[in-house]
Amino acid sequence: MGQTNKLAHRMARKTIKLVDKSGNPIAGKKVEMKQTNHQFLFGCGIFDVIDVANKNVPADRLAFQEEKLDKFLDVFNAGTLPFYWGRFEPEKGKPQTNELKAAAQWLKERNISVKGHPLCWHTVTAPWLLDMSNEEILKAQFDRIERDVTDFKGLIDMWDVINEVVIMPIFDKYDNGITRISKDLGRVGIIKEMFAKTREHNPDATLLLNDFNTSINYEILIDGCLNAGIQIDAIGIQSHQHQGYWGREKLEEVLERFSHFGIPIHFTENTLTSGHIMPPEIEDLNDYQIPDWPSTPEFEDRQAKEVEEMYSILFEHPLVEAITTWSFSDDGAWLGAPAGFVRKDNSTKPSYEVLKKLIKGDWYTNKQTQTDDNGMVSLEGFLGEYELLCDGKKVSFILDKSEEILQLVCETGEHVSSI
Amino acid sequence: MGQTNKLAHRMARKTIKLVDKSGNPIAGKKVEMKQTNHQFLFGCGIFDVIDVANKNVPADRLAFQEEKLDKFLDVFNAGTLPFYWGRFEPEKGKPQTNELKAAAQWLKERNISVKGHPLCWHTVTAPWLLDMSNEEILKAQFDRIERDVTDFKGLIDMWDVINEVVIMPIFDKYDNGITRISKDLGRVGIIKEMFAKTREHNPDATLLLNDFNTSINYEILIDGCLNAGIQIDAIGIQSHQHQGYWGREKLEEVLERFSHFGIPIHFTENTLTSGHIMPPEIEDLNDYQIPDWPSTPEFEDRQAKEVEEMYSILFEHPLVEAITTWSFSDDGAWLGAPAGFVRKDNSTKPSYEVLKKLIKGDWYTNKQTQTDDNGMVSLEGFLGEYELLCDGKKVSFILDKSEEILQLVCETGEHVSSI
Repeated sequence: MGQTNKLAHRMARKTIKLVDKSGNPIAGKKVEMKQTNHQFLFGCGIFDVIDVANKNVPADRLAFQEEKLDKFLDVFNAGTLPFYWGRFEPEKGKPQTNELKAAAQWLKERNISVKGHPLCWHTVTAPWLLDMSNEEILKAQFDRIERDVTDFKGLIDMWDVINEVVIMPIFDKYDNGITRISKDLGRVGIIKEMFAKTREHNPDATLLLNDFNTSINYEILIDGCLNAGIQIDAIGIQSHQHQGYWGREKLEEVLERFSHFGIPIHFTENTLTSGHIMPPEIEDLNDYQIPDWPSTPEFEDRQAKEVEEMYSILFEHPLVEAITTWSFSDDGAWLGAPAGFVRKDNSTKPSYEVLKKLIKGDWYTNKQTQTDDNGMVSLEGFLGEYELLCDGKKVSFILDKSEEILQLVCETGEHVSSI
Repeated sequence: MGQTNKLAHRMARKTIKLVDKSGNPIAGKKVEMKQTNHQFLFGCGIFDVIDVANKNVPADRLAFQEEKLDKFLDVFNAGTLPFYWGRFEPEKGKPQTNELKAAAQWLKERNISVKGHPLCWHTVTAPWLLDMSNEEILKAQFDRIERDVTDFKGLIDMWDVINEVVIMPIFDKYDNGITRISKDLGRVGIIKEMFAKTREHNPDATLLLNDFNTSINYEILIDGCLNAGIQIDAIGIQSHQHQGYWGREKLEEVLERFSHFGIPIHFTENTLTSGHIMPPEIEDLNDYQIPDWPSTPEFEDRQAKEVEEMYSILFEHPLVEAITTWSFSDDGAWLGAPAGFVRKDNSTKPSYEVLKKLIKGDWYTNKQTQTDDNGMVSLEGFLGEYELLCDGKKVSFILDKSEEILQLVCETGEHVSSI
């Protein structure tokens, strides 16, 4: 915790009073306080959960996926699940609600915060929209939001509501229903409609706008949305760095520009590969198709250094509340890139170890102390969930920025290993 | 009028009934209808009027300026006057209101529509803002708008309210008061404030947003403004083409993109030079400083062709309502460019003659006919103001898109040359 000053916004100081069932102070006892979760969201795109939760793959593949997820669960506390309309509901009226519910439930049971991605996007959208009038497309999009946001309420309370709006009305690679209606509504107009509909069906959800465009375009779009009265709970920034790590300077410049709004920032789709760099002349990353994109020891070291620096910069920034690395594993990674923290055989890369050390080591709090005569202990630590162990009993609490003294009753009958 | 179809939006068909003082039809008489003004605004930046209206230059200069303005008045019906804060009020509390009022009055008396440019801009703004807090700067900017918009109401009812907002908060060439407050308010925020204040003090004025940035940035900014409830009466587009004529393709592409909003478009600052092309590597046009930028016969021919094509494209576009060429004359032109329709000695260039032929010839209506037994004549012509001459009498009317029959009373005692 030598970085206390730079990370003060991630920490809190709390006085805790321990009492027994009768309310008497537990004086002069050894106490251990162990952080069990971060307030900050360290996430990955973790679509593999669908296989595991639904057990709908062969046994050997299932075992492989379970092993992968064990490694994910060991470090991360947030996961993004796919709601691409064209895959979620390839045939109109037959959404894969059950499969996704099982996946979201699986994550929730393991204390992983789940985000759905995305509710509205021109890419991988439902092809059957093309047969509709613009009025019908808009209604279908609204119905889709109402259905899915309602179905997943309580399991998924965080949504990338709409994706890549800067390019949406001028996207011209192929015709699609969402680009059509975005031309009618305008950029701010379609955002307004989709946020309103999502908010209507889950008023307490965290709603994100998400884009890969980090230029002034996106700034002006956000400015317009806020002035139009749209409540954006977090600004989503994609950072697929297949063409090379942005580096500290660009990262800080992007952070500075998007901090002006005073709104939380989520890095929603981060990629730092452990392979060669995609050539700079590729404009749409999807155009880069190669048969094999190997992960190499040299580039794995580079990836680890980049992950360490980037996560550190973001964790130090007061407005950043989440970082999601898009591909936890090279297995199934977008574009076949060696973009994961684990290799195709589930072995961990240096980047995994570096990040685990940060998330579960440097940025995690574990304190042993002793209650005073009044049963009081103090704790300064990283924000999040904790377990307190005292006299063979265990009690959970949350360390937040509130000022009041926390009174904990050690009364669980559960005996834990002594401290 | 062979372009009738392409220019149908600029024209109207009207039935006119001529009656005498007693209301009896004037039957079987020869009639001449002569257009005297366009509804469309053909303008220039015409700051020279300040000299002439105030007679505050030496006699020979005055005569030269008067000669220049005669040529301006022969073709154009709109003029832009300068309200750059740093020049209009170099010393706080001593604005050049009287000088500008005389100039606006001079133009109004000659049936020239006047626009004020601009009320808020980071360039050439008042240097004394730098001594103020941001709160004080905003108040000073509001006070300036209140004072000037009120002072000029009736003389100037069209304003470039705020200029170049896309770059405003990131403008870093030098510190200035307006960039400071734009950072506080955000782009849409400062536009909202400035439009509201201007509207408050002249509710019927035509209010423009103006920018040289014709990229997606400006589109998104306008989209944001409209969704934030800001009433933009016309989108102002600068088109200083010192680095070469955009050409039909780019011009039509820009028109298409900015037509989506369904709002009138004004080309507010057009430049097509009759000299060599400024090198493409110059990013800020102001950085190009050369001792002499000659107008040459070869480039004057090019300028004339470009003017003819560009004005024709814009006049054909239904949403364009105004074109202002920024420098009527090479004398005093921005950057010393040969940007005018007249040379430094007031002689006219081919571009002047070409444009005069369009504005006062091809796009002007002059019809001779005869009333029928009911005193009726019909007119199909370009929108604007007309004089009707009949039986030695003259009556003025406006040709607009309204459907009703126009009844004109020929009763003026004024005898005019026979038709």
